[in-house]
This record gives sequence, C-alpha cells and structure tokens, in this order.
Amino acid sequence: MKDKLTKFLPILEWLPNYQKGNLQGDLSAGLTVGIMLIPQGMAYAMLAGLEPIHGLYAVTVPLLLYAIFGTSRQLAVGPVAMVSLLTAAGIGALNPSGPEQYLLYALSLAFLIGLIQFGMGLFRLGFVVNFLSHPVISGFTSAAAIIIGLSQIKHLFRINLPNSEHIQDMAVAIAQNIGDTHFLTLGIGVLGILIIKFGKKIHKSFPAPLAAVVVGILLVWGFDLTGQGVKIVGEVPSGLPSLSAPSFDLDTWNTLLPIALTISLVGFAESFAVAKTIQNKHKNYKLDANQELIGLGMANFGAAFFKGYPVTGGFSRTAVNNDAGAKTGLASIFSAALIVLTLLFFTDLFYNLPSAILAAVVLVAVSGLIDFKEPVKLWHKDKADFWMLSSTFVITLTLGIETGIIAGMVLSLLVVIYRASRPHMAQLGRVAGTNIFRNVNRFKDLENREELLMVRIDGPIYFANIEYIKSRIGKWLEEKGPKVKMIVFNMESVTNLDSTGAHELHDWVTTWRSQELDVCITATKGPVRDTLNRWGLIECVGADHMFVDDNSAVEYFDHTANLESVQKLSPYATQVT
Amino acid sequence: MKDKLTKFLPILEWLPNYQKGNLQGDLSAGLTVGIMLIPQGMAYAMLAGLEPIHGLYAVTVPLLLYAIFGTSRQLAVGPVAMVSLLTAAGIGALNPSGPEQYLLYALSLAFLIGLIQFGMGLFRLGFVVNFLSHPVISGFTSAAAIIIGLSQIKHLFRINLPNSEHIQDMAVAIAQNIGDTHFLTLGIGVLGILIIKFGKKIHKSFPAPLAAVVVGILLVWGFDLTGQGVKIVGEVPSGLPSLSAPSFDLDTWNTLLPIALTISLVGFAESFAVAKTIQNKHKNYKLDANQELIGLGMANFGAAFFKGYPVTGGFSRTAVNNDAGAKTGLASIFSAALIVLTLLFFTDLFYNLPSAILAAVVLVAVSGLIDFKEPVKLWHKDKADFWMLSSTFVITLTLGIETGIIAGMVLSLLVVIYRASRPHMAQLGRVAGTNIFRNVNRFKDLENREELLMVRIDGPIYFANIEYIKSRIGKWLEEKGPKVKMIVFNMESVTNLDSTGAHELHDWVTTWRSQELDVCITATKGPVRDTLNRWGLIECVGADHMFVDDNSAVEYFDHTANLESVQKLSPYATQVT
Repeated sequence: MKDKLTKFLPILEWLPNYQKGNLQGDLSAGLTVGIMLIPQGMAYAMLAGLEPIHGLYAVTVPLLLYAIFGTSRQLAVGPVAMVSLLTAAGIGALNPSGPEQYLLYALSLAFLIGLIQFGMGLFRLGFVVNFLSHPVISGFTSAAAIIIGLSQIKHLFRINLPNSEHIQDMAVAIAQNIGDTHFLTLGIGVLGILIIKFGKKIHKSFPAPLAAVVVGILLVWGFDLTGQGVKIVGEVPSGLPSLSAPSFDLDTWNTLLPIALTISLVGFAESFAVAKTIQNKHKNYKLDANQELIGLGMANFGAAFFKGYPVTGGFSRTAVNNDAGAKTGLASIFSAALIVLTLLFFTDLFYNLPSAILAAVVLVAVSGLIDFKEPVKLWHKDKADFWMLSSTFVITLTLGIETGIIAGMVLSLLVVIYRASRPHMAQLGRVAGTNIFRNVNRFKDLENREELLMVRIDGPIYFANIEYIKSRIGKWLEEKGPKVKMIVFNMESVTNLDSTGAHELHDWVTTWRSQELDVCITATKGPVRDTLNRWGLIECVGADHMFVDDNSAVEYFDHTANLESVQKLSPYATQVT
Repeated sequence: MKDKLTKFLPILEWLPNYQKGNLQGDLSAGLTVGIMLIPQGMAYAMLAGLEPIHGLYAVTVPLLLYAIFGTSRQLAVGPVAMVSLLTAAGIGALNPSGPEQYLLYALSLAFLIGLIQFGMGLFRLGFVVNFLSHPVISGFTSAAAIIIGLSQIKHLFRINLPNSEHIQDMAVAIAQNIGDTHFLTLGIGVLGILIIKFGKKIHKSFPAPLAAVVVGILLVWGFDLTGQGVKIVGEVPSGLPSLSAPSFDLDTWNTLLPIALTISLVGFAESFAVAKTIQNKHKNYKLDANQELIGLGMANFGAAFFKGYPVTGGFSRTAVNNDAGAKTGLASIFSAALIVLTLLFFTDLFYNLPSAILAAVVLVAVSGLIDFKEPVKLWHKDKADFWMLSSTFVITLTLGIETGIIAGMVLSLLVVIYRASRPHMAQLGRVAGTNIFRNVNRFKDLENREELLMVRIDGPIYFANIEYIKSRIGKWLEEKGPKVKMIVFNMESVTNLDSTGAHELHDWVTTWRSQELDVCITATKGPVRDTLNRWGLIECVGADHMFVDDNSAVEYFDHTANLESVQKLSPYATQVT
C-alpha cells in the first residue's frame, strides 16, 4: 500500500528522508533557475501569443505539482520554445476573437494536454515515446528551432511580419519588410544576444539572460528609448494568478485536439529525453515514463487552472538546474517561490523591458537546438537514418510543425512496419557429426540434405509477417527443387501465433501434404504449443509429427523413408526369392 | 526485356499461348458473370447514389483493362457493395449541387483511386495490405454489410430514410418511418429475395438475380404496378459510354483524398483476398500483389474516363466465374462483350425494373458477408484477436465505415508496434560438458554462472525496441545481483542496428565499464559487424572483446579472471616466500 502511494506520489520518497546536505545545492539551483525563468517565461509567453505575465503564472503551481508527482529530481518544468510555438500555431488557426478568447483557448489547451498526458500515464502508454526515433526527433527539432527563430525576427527588427510556420512565406515576408528595420531596436536586441552568448562564458551559473534584461531595462529607462520607438513589455500586473477555468465546450475541444495531441507527445518526448540524460548521471533514483506522464499532466492541469499555458520539461533549464546542484524536487519549489515573490513585489521593474531583449532570449535558446553534426554523422554512418532525419527536417520547414511531427511519426512507423514484416528466418543444416542444427548461411560445411527443408523462424508468426514468411519458404522450396520430401519447422524462437498465422499455417500444411510434401514441427515452447492445439494444428500436422528437437524429426524422416523403400522393394524381393 | 514486358502486361503470358480447350469454360463463365453483372451493376450504382446505367458502364472498359494488366485469371472486376457504399458516403459528405456534380465526383474518385493504386503498385507497396489483420477485416466486413443492408431498407419498404452510416441514426429513422411501408413494393422485394435465395439451390450457375429481375419487370409490366406506387428504374439510356473526364481541381482532390485512400486499400484488400483463394485452387499461374495494384489502378482509370465509378475485384462474382469454368482473362472479356451488347440493344427492357428488386440483389449479396462463426471461434481460441474483431465491428457500426477501417488499421498497427517493441531475448547458459549455449528458461540444468550475464537478442536492435532491451537487461542484472562481472552479448540473431541503437549501445558499454562490469560481443554477422565498426562500437568495446562464439568469450573471461587473481595474490605470495 505504502509502495503504491509512493509510486503515485514520488515526493514521499525523497521529502521524508530529506538530507540536510542537499539543501545548499537545491537552494542555489532553485534560485538560479528561478532567475532564468523570469525572462524566459515572459519571452516564451510572448512567442505563444500571450501576455508575458502568463509565462510567469505558468511557473508557479505547475512547478509545485510536478515536484509532487514527477519522478525526475532535476527536471525543470515550465514554458519551452517548441510548446509555445505549437500553442501559437494551434490557437492562431482557430481565429480567436480577442485576447480573452485567446487566453481561454490557451487554458483549454493546457487542460486537454493535462487530460491526455494523465490518461496516457494511467493507461501505461509511456512506451509510445519510443516510436519517435532519434533521427526524426533531431530533424524535427532543428527545423522547429529555425521556424521559432524566424518568428522572433519581427521583434528583433521591429518590422511587421505575418504569423506563419512555413519557411517560404516567412522568407518572402522578411525580404519585403526588412527595409522597415528599426535600427535602435535591432541594436538593443543584438546587444542582448551578445550579453547572453558571452555572459555564459564568464561563469557557468552567471544569470546571463537576467543580465541582458537588466541592461535592456536600464537603457530604455535611462535614455527614454520608448520615445524613439523601441517597443517595451509595458504594464505587468502584480499579484498571484487568480483561479481560471478552461473551456468545457466540446467543439472547442474538438478543434484543439490535434494540436493538443501533438504537444502532449512532443512535449513528453522532449521532457523525457532530457530527464533520462540527467538521471543517467545520478542513478540514485528511478525514472518511470508513465509516472512522468502523470507528473507533466498534473503540471498542465495546474497551468489550466492558474492562468498559465502548456508546460513541459525544458532542455536548457534542466541542464542549468543540474549544473547548479539540484538534488531533489525542492529546487523546483524554490524556483516557484522566487517567481511568487517576483509576482508579488517586483513586476513593476519589468515595465521598461524591451521586447527585443525577450526575442534575444528565445533566439539564443533555440540556436542551440539546431543540430548540424548529427546529419553529417548519419550521412557517413547510416544512410537510411540520414534520409529519415532530412525528410523530417524538410517537411517540418516547408509544411509546418504539425505536419512535420506527423510525417516523422509516420516515417518511424513505416520503419517499424518494414522490420516487423521481415522476421529473421534461417534455413538449418546439421553440424557434421553432431545433433546440432545451425543457419546454413552462417556456418560452413553444414549437412544440408536435398530431401529436407529445415526452417527456423525467429519471432512471432502473425498477420504482419505471414506473407513474408510464406514467400521466403516458397523461394527456398524452389531453390531446393522437387527433391524436397519434408519441411521441418523449427519453432524454438517463435514467441506467438495469432489467428491469421494459425489459419495460414493450416492452409500450408494441407497444401503441402496434398503435394506429397510432409511437414513436421519441432521445439515449440509451451504457450505456442497450446495455441497450435487450440487451432487444431497439432491434429492437422499429426501428433506423431511434433518433435522436441530437429534431430528427432530427421531420424523420423530417415525411418519412414526406409520403411517406404522397404515397402517399395518388397514385391520385387518376393519375386526374387 | 520480354520478361519485363510480360510482367507489366500479364495478358502476354496467356493470350499468345491460348489453349482451345479453355475456350468453352471461359465462354460459359464470361456469359454467366455478364448476366449477373446486369442486375448487380445497376443495383450497386444505385447504392453508390448514381444512375443505374453507370454500374453497367463500369463493367465495359475497366474489365478489358484488368484482363490486360491483372495477374489473376479468374478475378471478376466491377462494382462491389462495399466500394459503392464508401463512394456514396464520401461524395455525400461533399454536398454535391446536383446529379452532374455527383457524377463528376464519382469519376474523380475513380481517377484518384486509379492514381493511388497504380502508384502503390509502381512503388512496390503491395505489402501494406498485410497490415489489415484477419480479425479486423472480418469485423469490418460484417459491420459494413449490416450498414449496407440497412441502406436498402428504404427501397425495399419504399419509405423515406436519410442517408446515414450510423446504425443508431438508421434504427431511429426506420422505427419512425416503418409505418409508411408500401406493402406492394415490399412484396415484390421479398419475392425477389426468395427467388435469388432459392434459385441458387436449383443449380450452381442458375442466374437467380437475373430471374428475379425478369420476374420483377414482368410483374410491373403485366399489372401496371407503377400506377400503384411501385418505384421503377425508368429510362436507361442506350448506347456505349462516351468519354468522360474526372475533375482536376486540387480542392476537390483534397476533399476526396481520405475516402479515395480508404477505397484504394479496402478495395485492394478485398480483391486480393479473393484472388488468392482462387489462385490457390489453380496454381498454374502466379499472383503478384504489386501488379494486382497496377491492374486495379488501370481498371479504375477506365472507370474514370468511361463514365463508370470505382471498381474492384468482387467476392461472389469471382467465385461464380471460377465455378463456371473461367481459365483465363478471356472470360472477363466475354462478360464485358455481353454488357456492351446489352448497352447497345437491350436497355429498353429494364425500364419497368422495380427498385425493390435491385435492393433484393444487394441484400442477398451482403447478407453472405456477415460472419457469425469467426467471432465465436476467436472467443474460444484467441481472446486478443476476438477483441480486435469486435471492437472494429462496434466502431464501424456506430461511428461509420471510414472511422471503422481507420480504427481497424490503428488497432492492427498497435499490435505490430507492441510486438515490434518486444523482441525475443534469451539469457544463455552452457549445456554441461559442451560448448553449446542455450536459453536458460527453456533448457534445464544449464550452467548459469553468477559472474556472467549472457544475453541473446533475436531480431533487429533499433529505436522501437531499444528501451525494452535495456529494461530487460536491467532486470536480469538485478536478479543476478552484484556478482556479475561481465556481460556477453550474443548477436548471432541481430539482423540490424540503427543509429538510435548504436548510440544506446555506446552509452551502455561506457556506463557498465565505469561500474567495473566488462562487456563483450559474440557471433556478430558481417553487416552488423560493419555497422558496429562504423559507429566506433568495436573500438568502444575493444577489438579483443569481440568473439566468434560464446565459448571464446567465456574462456577469455576465465583467463583474465585468473590473471587478476594471480596479480591479487602475488604481493601476498611474495611476502610468504
């Protein structure tokens, strides 16, 4: 009972046994991440098309909920670039009537994602994340990073650009409007980028984005740059988020569903990937994919009911959290506390923050996500995976983020299907002088008798591979020619037989027998033997044609062949005597 | 070259070598099927929402094209119930403005299906049909047959019913309108059903549907039943179909695409299934899934350009064709010729044909498609497949045909994914006194040393199963406890290693080595060894840790263990001497 509770509430595992020695690391990491969260949260909310304040709301309650329900102890949950962009794309397509409806959609989206992730966790569907292969994730992430980067150009150059996910439209619009660049804004943005880029080199935990924010605010305030056209964040409401409710309108849900599914999967994949990397360095706790889904689902519920927007575990912040010494979920609780203090007392400070600085924060963050090395590596080492990466990349870039992730999944699935439909099969021959039978293609000098076709199938026999198995056996039969008198099915590695497989096997046996081709089955495992029995296949093959090993089958064959030749000889023999 | 041509034009294989002996069978079969096609073609066209004449047009040019390009010699191509219903459902959703636009959509649909099937054939995608598992097809077909049957109630009872694919809506509408039944129409329909049902029992090739048609026409004509409210087919235009063109409007294509994909797959699956069954009885020619796609694609092009509508190979007509003695594609050519004669000279005869008789033709045809036995059988023999069948059945019945087939495919895919993510793995032990290593769970009394974990993975190592492999090894390591000093990977059955797998393997080896757990790899095949080498894995594991078989790995382990113990002993030994 207690075990079950701990499984569902992982906080019970570490909080009651909290070691004082971890406090310093947790505190320092929590504050560092909290300081990062202020500009990042605001910048990502803007990227999602929301008021910056919602990015701060999104790192209050959700962080606490993840600390309670999540299994990773270093994962920093909150708004991330990819999810923010997907949020903007999804809600934009619904043509919301104004900011209020936009917010309502964002809350509903968070709620739906919460439902999907929580439900997936409950039904143990965490394994689906395996079906985004590494090259697909890499291609998708690089392309999405470029699209996100381009979406920030309008803030950096202060030019008018439509919201679009298609690189071709973006490129045209940028080319048309680049002449309107507001150079003062651009200058502040570039300064911001430089501070963040080189600030990191001073010290690993130097809060470079916060430094850029401070410099930006001071510049605008000191030189009254708003008068010269620099856009600022403006009023940031003070105080904690009030309770909010998502929409429970089914039509709204229906339209949001595809993007909610996409974010649920992509968000989880991103989060779980980084959580695994970090957990690998600690190993003092276990990650559980299904419980992670529950943790992220709860965090999204928190966002939905406290004026946030969709959240997940972020790459860079998690790395910072770990580097700064986070040992338990307490670090996240400290981060949330810092944000709460900011919301209560310091929001006024951000009035003069230039939007270009927030754009700089996003740009630097996503530029690190573009992976140049992986495609080059794959080109040299695995062409199939290279094509998977590059087609996902190109599709995402030209047809948009959602189409990109779906295409990537379809590609991954096609690979799974292709492999699933081609089980490993071996033709067996006897190792001379022994009772051991091995793959004739791998071992030399095996006895491969022309009257026998001995086949081993490795894996399940089911609808997805039955045609392949059939055609492969057909080819071997053809190669061996008409002298084959018996087929021996070695089923030692057959793990399962479904109804389609059973039907087909029945057909084969009857057809072969009608062609005077005998069939026997060897080395079945218990469960497979039961299935054969249920489908009447043991009866069909004959109980006297089921053998424990290949050798017995061959002995049986030699025995009956002798009997037959004796019978054939006997009339002749009688004549002679 | 000639071989290639024959492959693309299978008619070149049988026509130049045509044997006179086949002529009688082909002629008799061709005429029997032709006579069946007249009422069936008209009935199915009506089911598809088109004028009956298009059902006849659909069996002129398409039949010739299939005879030229198809590989089956008995397959009877033409309109079938399922495809007709899908056509009606697909076009109905587009709200065509009138019969002309409806026809245009039907032609465009045939064209798109032609494109998809031809393209799939060209790109050798015939294998996808394997991914509709047997239980899914059975559940889907039964449900679709019920929906099709219900759609005929309005003609049989002459009541007003909306077009719907949802059984719940249909049931409500039938209950509300059943009071308006026109009993004379119902009587004619029931008579038609009885004639078709019992006519077949007189003789296998008795043209029962045609007899029902004749009786229906004579009744209407003799007793002037139109005056009493019996609905008739009316004017059937005489003459051959003129050339027609599908729409080339991209928006129309886009809306038709989902239903076109569905029909392409379902139609092909149905057609190929029956073609296989019949080919199995002859075996004097070969079926080729990809060339079948090309043949059906061409037939659909024929339908698109000659005022037909989507066609495929039909279950019942193919069975009749074969029973009546069809030996080559010439039978289909004779069927087409009979239809052409009918179109030229006999269309006037069908003026008085009651719609209720056509409904009877459809009802009898689909009632045979409802499979009661399979679910009962599966319930006893394979629960998983039973649930697959029944959920496809229920979803199709309640949510509609398209959702049903998609749900069926998704279910099949989930099974493939589930199995693909769980490769067969074995922990190996030595058969005492030999160099043979076997699965410790299958063989008793194997030597399973506590310092060694020997693992064999059967199948590819790739993104879809890497997590499972990892957790399985993790569990084995835990079971064996801290005494394990070396992991031996037997890769004799590993068929492939992708980049995700290579990355992970690298991680594992480094992690294990850092925990003083040695790793070696045995029995790799050539291509897998090349992949290991390309990814630097041989370097990572160490060339001296790659062995041709398990025995060498164990010997190496014993050797180094001895060395270590010698080294550990030596200082002590020195002290003693």
